[in-house]
Amino acid sequence: MWLQREIRLDPRPRGFHLITGEVVRALPELGEVGVGLLHVFIRHTSASLTLNENASPDVRHDFDAFFDDAVPEDAPYWTHTFEGPDDMPAHIKASLLGPSLMLPVSRGRLAVGTWQGIYLCEHRDRGGSRSLVATLQGE
Amino acid sequence: MWLQREIRLDPRPRGFHLITGEVVRALPELGEVGVGLLHVFIRHTSASLTLNENASPDVRHDFDAFFDDAVPEDAPYWTHTFEGPDDMPAHIKASLLGPSLMLPVSRGRLAVGTWQGIYLCEHRDRGGSRSLVATLQGE
Amino acid sequence: MWLQREIRLDPRPRGFHLITGEVVRALPELGEVGVGLLHVFIRHTSASLTLNENASPDVRHDFDAFFDDAVPEDAPYWTHTFEGPDDMPAHIKASLLGPSLMLPVSRGRLAVGTWQGIYLCEHRDRGGSRSLVATLQGE
Repeated sequence: MWLQREIRLDPRPRGFHLITGEVVRALPELGEVGVGLLHVFIRHTSASLTLNENASPDVRHDFDAFFDDAVPEDAPYWTHTFEGPDDMPAHIKASLLGPSLMLPVSRGRLAVGTWQGIYLCEHRDRGGSRSLVATLQGE
Repeated sequence: MWLQREIRLDPRPRGFHLITGEVVRALPELGEVGVGLLHVFIRHTSASLTLNENASPDVRHDFDAFFDDAVPEDAPYWTHTFEGPDDMPAHIKASLLGPSLMLPVSRGRLAVGTWQGIYLCEHRDRGGSRSLVATLQGE
Repeated sequence: MWLQREIRLDPRPRGFHLITGEVVRALPELGEVGVGLLHVFIRHTSASLTLNENASPDVRHDFDAFFDDAVPEDAPYWTHTFEGPDDMPAHIKASLLGPSLMLPVSRGRLAVGTWQGIYLCEHRDRGGSRSLVATLQGE
């Protein structure tokens, strides 16, 4: 069984946002998969996806603080600056975190840990709407 | 062909640990796959999986040194601190390295490079037992 | 449908190199896949793969600058130094960026964003030829 679907995400402010519910609701066919894998892919180079703690908003706040410190907008070595100071750091953060997640599916549900949630990592100040491609396979 | 199995890992100290043998031994069905993919997923947000050099313990030691320096416990910007100073850095390291690996399978074996080994990256001081979900597909 | 093929890449200098065209040309069977996934895996621990901006060479230049600054060759904590000063940083960069990409395939083409290109991330000064394993599945 193969299923592929685009999921359009509304614009979000720069930061880390939980989207697990939105992704699962877009894929009601998950309930029919006994054993499988769900691939979620973001079609952009200045936003990314990661899996992390889904309970405390302060964890997501600290993700912001860490990545803004580790990939500074004012680093002296940036040469690709004409799209704004948030652009090149966004590209780096996107590659550090990655453009996709592959999640196990078991008995009709994501077989992830209790505390694991899908984060949309919006690295631009005004990234606009983002497009995901979800690919579900299994039996 | 689809196969999915939980692998329980004994508690390990904070650090980087080779678990290739443990994963392969838990999946004797690998030997029956001509062409396929093995997905290994960790169901936690303070430990991660990566693939790296499998011969020199000093490489794994240097992973420790780098990540402890790059994601310091005493950074002034942490707000999520009530679970201990190792908790928030563990979440960040987990996302930098990622929760899963997808490995090619060819003629009954992992088609990885000679020097590539699976690391369990334990980012907590006392992370306890960790749970993996292995999903094997192929023909 | 399953297909697996090795792709040998010519030696490249240290840095970030676009290889989307080379990967796609090695897989003419992509055109027959209506819905599927392409896994591209690098069989080395001192080079990696990522997906990022495919238009501006200065973006790839800035990747170099960032990663050389974030993972310095002269860090005081390296102990694995006998393979040269570029070796241990190469291992770290390889794990930060990751050894594989999983890309959605739709109607015979990679369903990636307009600006997303596959980067070979060569972290060694003289890494030599690199070997990829491409695994294509779908229907």
